Amino acid sequence: MLGIDPGLTRCGVGVVEGLPGRPCTMVAYHVVQTDPGEELPLRLLRLDQELTRLVAEHEPASVAVERVFSQHNVRTVMGTAQASAIAVLAGARVGLPVQTYTPSEVKAAITGSGQADKAQMTSMVTRLLRLDAPPRPADAADALALAICHIWRGGTRSKLAAAADRVRQGGTR
Amino acid sequence: MLGIDPGLTRCGVGVVEGLPGRPCTMVAYHVVQTDPGEELPLRLLRLDQELTRLVAEHEPASVAVERVFSQHNVRTVMGTAQASAIAVLAGARVGLPVQTYTPSEVKAAITGSGQADKAQMTSMVTRLLRLDAPPRPADAADALALAICHIWRGGTRSKLAAAADRVRQGGTR
Repeated sequence: MLGIDPGLTRCGVGVVEGLPGRPCTMVAYHVVQTDPGEELPLRLLRLDQELTRLVAEHEPASVAVERVFSQHNVRTVMGTAQASAIAVLAGARVGLPVQTYTPSEVKAAITGSGQADKAQMTSMVTRLLRLDAPPRPADAADALALAICHIWRGGTRSKLAAAADRVRQGGTR
Repeated sequence: MLGIDPGLTRCGVGVVEGLPGRPCTMVAYHVVQTDPGEELPLRLLRLDQELTRLVAEHEPASVAVERVFSQHNVRTVMGTAQASAIAVLAGARVGLPVQTYTPSEVKAAITGSGQADKAQMTSMVTRLLRLDAPPRPADAADALALAICHIWRGGTRSKLAAAADRVRQGGTR
């Protein structure tokens, strides 16, 4: 599963392997950065190229993107909304299912509380993925949390169902 | 020139030919619609596919996109911001220069007043392009206005400079 925490200046990407109800394993994380001094078309183009490359590199079964909310700072929300469109498109364009989650859905899935703060989230992600140190920067932890949430919320369910069908039909995998 | 008035439900596209200070000619206009009942990834994907197709079909020298402003209704502005990212990307991805204009820049260029209302804008676009009837729906008129604004604001300047260079160097065109 590939999780994307959208941002125009810093966009977190987390790749996690796992099945619902089982421990997850971190595959990789990345932060795509674009220069705020650069023009918007170049920033969006760079984000598109990097996210498209990471999706092709990791070949996830599906993509989870954090849903943008309007109650945040209105200026930054515009850039975040634009980055989220590019993130959703990077998955949809290659035919992957793309699911969006609100920040509180992700927090609730990871910590049990929709009100968890950044430190609690980072600490839980570090524990859940059995990492030696917290992922840095925080954008990466958020993206990994999204990927874990997506796995636990059944993002892999259709894959499992398909595998179960194959077993029932006498296949080996 | 291809102008895009971004919207997730209705996205206007206007194609206009012309040079700064000269009358402009309408080539075509389109409104790309996506179903508000459809999931976001499918809507963004459809918008991307349609805009990419229209850019390829009309082969504009450059693309103008209306800049999204935060003072509008915060709920609709999110969808508009996402649509504008797709619009900017549709031009940037094929290597075209993409310019953004604020609504009042476009209004001022077309009517002489940054405060012009929709009816004044539609009426001026109809006159400037010498159309028999106003373009319908209004999203199309806004997109055509953007393309005209882009031409008048010198969107073609670099093309002209290149042509002048060729003439100076003894070329025929």
